[in-house]
Amino acid sequence: MDSKRPNRRGFLKSGAGVAGLAAGALQSATGQTPASELDRKATKEMIAYGDRSRFVTSTRMPVAERMSPDDFGLTFHVLTPLQDSVGIITPSSLHYVATHRGSYVPEINPLEHRLMIHGMVDRPLIFTMDELKRLPYVSRFHFIECIGNRAKVTHKTVQETHGMTSCAEWTGVPLSLLLKEAGIQNGASWIVAEGAEEVKGASSIPLAKALDDCLVCYGQNGEAVRPQQGFPLRLVVPGFEGIYQTKYLRRIKVVDRFYMTYNDYGHINPDPKVSALTSQIGPKSVITFPSGGQQLTGPGFYEISGLAWSGGGAVRKVEISFDGGRSWKNADIRGTPYKMAHTRFGYHWNWDGKECVLMSRCIDELGTIQPTKAEVAKYLKRPVENLRAPGADNTVHPWRVASDGSIHNGLA
Amino acid sequence: MDSKRPNRRGFLKSGAGVAGLAAGALQSATGQTPASELDRKATKEMIAYGDRSRFVTSTRMPVAERMSPDDFGLTFHVLTPLQDSVGIITPSSLHYVATHRGSYVPEINPLEHRLMIHGMVDRPLIFTMDELKRLPYVSRFHFIECIGNRAKVTHKTVQETHGMTSCAEWTGVPLSLLLKEAGIQNGASWIVAEGAEEVKGASSIPLAKALDDCLVCYGQNGEAVRPQQGFPLRLVVPGFEGIYQTKYLRRIKVVDRFYMTYNDYGHINPDPKVSALTSQIGPKSVITFPSGGQQLTGPGFYEISGLAWSGGGAVRKVEISFDGGRSWKNADIRGTPYKMAHTRFGYHWNWDGKECVLMSRCIDELGTIQPTKAEVAKYLKRPVENLRAPGADNTVHPWRVASDGSIHNGLA
Repeated sequence: MDSKRPNRRGFLKSGAGVAGLAAGALQSATGQTPASELDRKATKEMIAYGDRSRFVTSTRMPVAERMSPDDFGLTFHVLTPLQDSVGIITPSSLHYVATHRGSYVPEINPLEHRLMIHGMVDRPLIFTMDELKRLPYVSRFHFIECIGNRAKVTHKTVQETHGMTSCAEWTGVPLSLLLKEAGIQNGASWIVAEGAEEVKGASSIPLAKALDDCLVCYGQNGEAVRPQQGFPLRLVVPGFEGIYQTKYLRRIKVVDRFYMTYNDYGHINPDPKVSALTSQIGPKSVITFPSGGQQLTGPGFYEISGLAWSGGGAVRKVEISFDGGRSWKNADIRGTPYKMAHTRFGYHWNWDGKECVLMSRCIDELGTIQPTKAEVAKYLKRPVENLRAPGADNTVHPWRVASDGSIHNGLA
Repeated sequence: MDSKRPNRRGFLKSGAGVAGLAAGALQSATGQTPASELDRKATKEMIAYGDRSRFVTSTRMPVAERMSPDDFGLTFHVLTPLQDSVGIITPSSLHYVATHRGSYVPEINPLEHRLMIHGMVDRPLIFTMDELKRLPYVSRFHFIECIGNRAKVTHKTVQETHGMTSCAEWTGVPLSLLLKEAGIQNGASWIVAEGAEEVKGASSIPLAKALDDCLVCYGQNGEAVRPQQGFPLRLVVPGFEGIYQTKYLRRIKVVDRFYMTYNDYGHINPDPKVSALTSQIGPKSVITFPSGGQQLTGPGFYEISGLAWSGGGAVRKVEISFDGGRSWKNADIRGTPYKMAHTRFGYHWNWDGKECVLMSRCIDELGTIQPTKAEVAKYLKRPVENLRAPGADNTVHPWRVASDGSIHNGLA
């Protein structure tokens, strides 16, 4: 009813009309004028790798506070359009990116890529990609979030406030398997993971975490890891902040202490005990609809939708407040909550048309509750105004619903 | 280590060298020559919607037995490259497509699209896309498979033998909610779902199934349903053959009998009782590595990888045979088995270098076992040679491993 033929079907113009090709024409059409070379190319592309509708225009955007590669090419921080998201998968083309090496994405030939495991091990190992793929693998849904993913009063949309978190199905070899194969020596307590970037993108990770649930990933959402996500190999460290998820992974060194690396540019504590304890994300959540910049068309029913996640495990419960945090109601979990993965929640809401403040909070399987800014201020004995929670800010985010149905950042 | 700068960073050529932009240059770089217009465009595209590596060349292919849109534009059947798949998600760009309306993909403006629910209902309803999105939604992983997805002796690869099955995270409104809102009248027993295609892409579905687990989907893998998959709206009928998963869904009529539609071109039985019972897929499975056309490099350990699925529910167990079906061993389930979803299995296999025949079989939660061709032949009292199992052929597929490590279709 609302459709028209795409232009690429130029053979229609070339005289072979629709009527002549209708039912039963499968055999008789053999002698028809073939599609033009242009049509062939378009059709070949349609066959090879499909694309989205031209009516779907959801895109990532650069982080306003960081100079954009448009201008200098120095940093490349781009935000996932969470306001358009559904389910828990972030399409690989829309996965957030944060790097301090500009828009420079290493172009790595997987046939030449190697992963070395060395340091305090009995048998140093070097793997080709083919060799890694001969080892047992698993697939798991995990979020990756940048520690810098915090709402500011200047932010207008959920893409700006929370767009540096994304979730994918990651496939790879358990790091524990590689480390056990290499044979960890007594006294080892940390690993340093290094990527094939200019500045090596290295991170120190506690050995206990490395042996727990880390994955050396070659797959993202059913295909190869995307270049912006570390093709051909990315270390996924579930629940830890983004900087640990080493892209272009080429080297893992087993060591006996915390190593300060380029990636630890001040925000990671040089005290290994503190560092080991402050790298975990969440529990956290945000309402993606209705969110800043969106518009309710009047009183009535709306489906509140949002994402919750935690570095501490699976999401146990999500609660929603309609009165700025004074009272809370249980949201519905819309799907299965996976460990260290985005979890979609919803709530069937009847808006009465009055101004209100919407909030969500996540309670994870450890029972840890996402705090409000007021709770953090009370704990720190500091005023709540302009409070920046320490580490990865996981405070509850407020959206203000105005009486005209417009939605605004509740921090502003 | 194996990297080079992409050409798009033309500002390097324009005189602003790397050294001058190194650490600490964030401020001082403000006066640098900006990137060229071409660079700006490339960078804008990198920001907006990322792409895969140029080293990743996995693509869909047309079905050999059907005339390709390359030549006539009449049919558009393209196969997912299962040999390259990992995990359970099929990237939306690689989801299989089967249609009898050529490469013609309706270009639908979602603002103009409507869904009508009518027929034997108390309150006929018409929804805009925005109205549908105001209703409770769920997200689930479901496979879609074409009934024509059967291995032939002429097929060489798993893309050819099994490429007409794919799996995605589908998001939408439960059809049961829409039907209950409309109010189903006494005596209703079927629905007819119609799409906005030339031939209406209609399908008759038992009301019991419509009220069970069908979803009216606007989301696929975290973004809008792709045009080749039915943008803006697709009916997902979990576990039923592909033709029921009505694309470009615009109308659902509640009726009191099975309706023969264009889609039922002979392969769906006109007897409603038979039709209601033969539309369900599986249990089924196939080994994707090693599979036809792939090559083992010599004796030693390999990770067998494959997919199992069933229209009857979740996969309970997958077994692998190394001796052409005489004995079976338990494979590992690599992830969580979801109802009517692809499930990844694996097996850590030590190949002794001798010729052998690999097979997998799926046992679903109902206890139904995927049959071998020999078992079907015995049941039908027909010779096994050239046997085509009735309905959706879900027989066990054999891969022959030659002593040189090459893999061949075991039917040939």
